[in-house]
Amino acid sequence: MGIKPLSEYTRGQNWRRRRRTGRPLGHRALGNRLKTVFIENGLMRAGEPDQVVGFFRDLGVTVEVVDAKKEFFSALKGVTDPEEKREAITQAFYKTVFGRIVRDSGAKHLLQGTILTDVDETVAGIKRQHNVFEQLGIDPKETFGYQIIEPLIQLRKDGVRATGKALGLPATLFERIPFPGPALAARVIGEATPDRIETVRKATVVVERLLETTDAFQYMGILHEDRVTGMRDGKRDFGQQIEVRCWESVDARIATPTQLPFEMLEKLAADIISEVPGIVSVTYNIATKPPSTIEAV
Amino acid sequence: MGIKPLSEYTRGQNWRRRRRTGRPLGHRALGNRLKTVFIENGLMRAGEPDQVVGFFRDLGVTVEVVDAKKEFFSALKGVTDPEEKREAITQAFYKTVFGRIVRDSGAKHLLQGTILTDVDETVAGIKRQHNVFEQLGIDPKETFGYQIIEPLIQLRKDGVRATGKALGLPATLFERIPFPGPALAARVIGEATPDRIETVRKATVVVERLLETTDAFQYMGILHEDRVTGMRDGKRDFGQQIEVRCWESVDARIATPTQLPFEMLEKLAADIISEVPGIVSVTYNIATKPPSTIEAV
Repeated sequence: MGIKPLSEYTRGQNWRRRRRTGRPLGHRALGNRLKTVFIENGLMRAGEPDQVVGFFRDLGVTVEVVDAKKEFFSALKGVTDPEEKREAITQAFYKTVFGRIVRDSGAKHLLQGTILTDVDETVAGIKRQHNVFEQLGIDPKETFGYQIIEPLIQLRKDGVRATGKALGLPATLFERIPFPGPALAARVIGEATPDRIETVRKATVVVERLLETTDAFQYMGILHEDRVTGMRDGKRDFGQQIEVRCWESVDARIATPTQLPFEMLEKLAADIISEVPGIVSVTYNIATKPPSTIEAV
Repeated sequence: MGIKPLSEYTRGQNWRRRRRTGRPLGHRALGNRLKTVFIENGLMRAGEPDQVVGFFRDLGVTVEVVDAKKEFFSALKGVTDPEEKREAITQAFYKTVFGRIVRDSGAKHLLQGTILTDVDETVAGIKRQHNVFEQLGIDPKETFGYQIIEPLIQLRKDGVRATGKALGLPATLFERIPFPGPALAARVIGEATPDRIETVRKATVVVERLLETTDAFQYMGILHEDRVTGMRDGKRDFGQQIEVRCWESVDARIATPTQLPFEMLEKLAADIISEVPGIVSVTYNIATKPPSTIEAV
C-alpha cells in the first residue's frame, strides 16, 4: 500500500488502515505475541495512564493498566537518597510488579525502551537509571526471571524521534517531552510520599500547560524538601518551594536553561502559587548541564 | 557652621570638620558617653567587620570589634528550624555577648537600630526579628540586665534613608542594601555551621559584585539544604544549590523579583558555580512577596 497524503486518512474508513502502517516497533515485529502493559505506579502525571492508553488505542493496540500504586509507595516509604530511591523503584518495577506479571502470563521476555543516554549516565556513575542492567553486570534472567529486549539501546533521544517519524507514528507520540523512568519520584527532593507526589503533580500541570508552546527540549517542576518562610493572610506560612527547569538541548548530554521572557516566569510563579496548596516560593533554574543534570534527583 | 558644597570638604583640612557635621544619630546625641561595638559573630559578609570599622573611622567614631564567633556558632550548633535559629541568635546576642559587655563596661543602656518593619513582622507572627522585645512583652532590663533605646523604631527603611540623608551621612552608608539581623545565618536553610556560612559568604561576594550596579532594593544568595544531582569531570557530584533573590521594593512590605536580563542570570550561575566549591545548581527566585518573604529563613 502506498503512502497517501495524511488528510486522506484523517477521517472515515481509511483512518484505521493508516494507523496500522504506523504501528509501534514492538507490535510491528511481534504482532499478537506482544502483551502491552502500563504500570500505574502512582507516580505518573495527571491523566497520564488514560492518555497513554488512548494513544495506543488510536494505534490499534490494547494496553492493560496494572495498578501497582501500593507496591511503589510501600517501596519508597522512608527513602530520601536519590540513588536509593532509584534502586527502590527498580526493585518494585522489575522484581515485584513485572516478576508477578511474568509469572502470571508465562512471558519470557520484557521489551522496553532503554536508550543509550540511560546506559552512558549509569555506567559513568552519574545517575543510576532504573532500566539499565547488563551493562552493570546484572543478568535480568537470573535476577528477575526473564530476559530483556531493548531495540532502541543504540539511540539517543534524537535518534528515537527519527525512528518514530520513520515508523509513521503520530508526532504527538515521539515529540513528547522526555519524562524520567522514576517518573514524579524524580521530581521530589526527599521522600516520595503520596501527598508530596500529588503536590508536584499539580505543579507539573501548570508547568506543562504554560511551557508546551515553547520549543524547549524539556521542562519540569521540582518539589524541594527545604522549607522556606512565607506569609499568607498576613500570617507566617512556613511553606514549600517549587523549582521550575526548562532546558534547551539536542540529546540531553549538554543543556542550557531556556531564556524564557520574564512575563512567563512571573506567570509560572503566580499560577503555581495559586493552584498548588502549600507552595509559597518558586524559583527558575539558571545553571547549565554540566555541572547540573537535567533532573534534580 | 554653614553647610558648604561637598567638594570643598572632600580634600584638605576641612574634611574632618565636614565629617563631624555628619555624625551618626547616637554620637550626635550622646558624644563620648556612647561606646560603639561591632559584634564579630562569624556570620557577617566577606570583609564586613573591617568595612564597618572603616565607615565609622571616616566619621570620627572609634568602633571596638568584639570577637564572639565561638559563642554564636556554639549557640547555632544543631539548630535547623528558622525560628529556633533566630531565638538562638537573640540569646547569644543579647544575653551572652551584650550581657558580658554591659557587665564589663558598667553600661546601663543598649542603643540599637530596630525599625518599624521588624516590629510589624514580629508582632504579626510572620518572622520573629531578633531585636524586638517590648512589643512581645519581654522586659530587656529584667531579661538581659540593661534597657534598650531605639531611636528609629517609628521608621521603615525609606524613613531611615531620609534620616541618614538629613544627618549628612555619606550615601554609601544609608544606601547600603538591607542585611538581616541574623546575618548569613538567615541565608542558609538548615544548620548554620562555619563551613556552610563560608559557602554562602562566597556566593554573597558574587551576587553583590554582579548586582550592585542594579537599582534593586535588595539581593542575596541563599544556600539550600537540599542536595541535587550534578556532574563534574564526567562523574556524579551530589552537590548543593544556591538560590539568588533580587527584589524591587520601597519598604520591604511588598516586593517583586527584579527582571534581570538573562545574560546576567547566566553570569550569576556561571560565576557562583566556578567560585563557590560544592555548588552544582543555581536558581533565581520568581515569586513575589507575599506569599514569599524577602529572606528565606
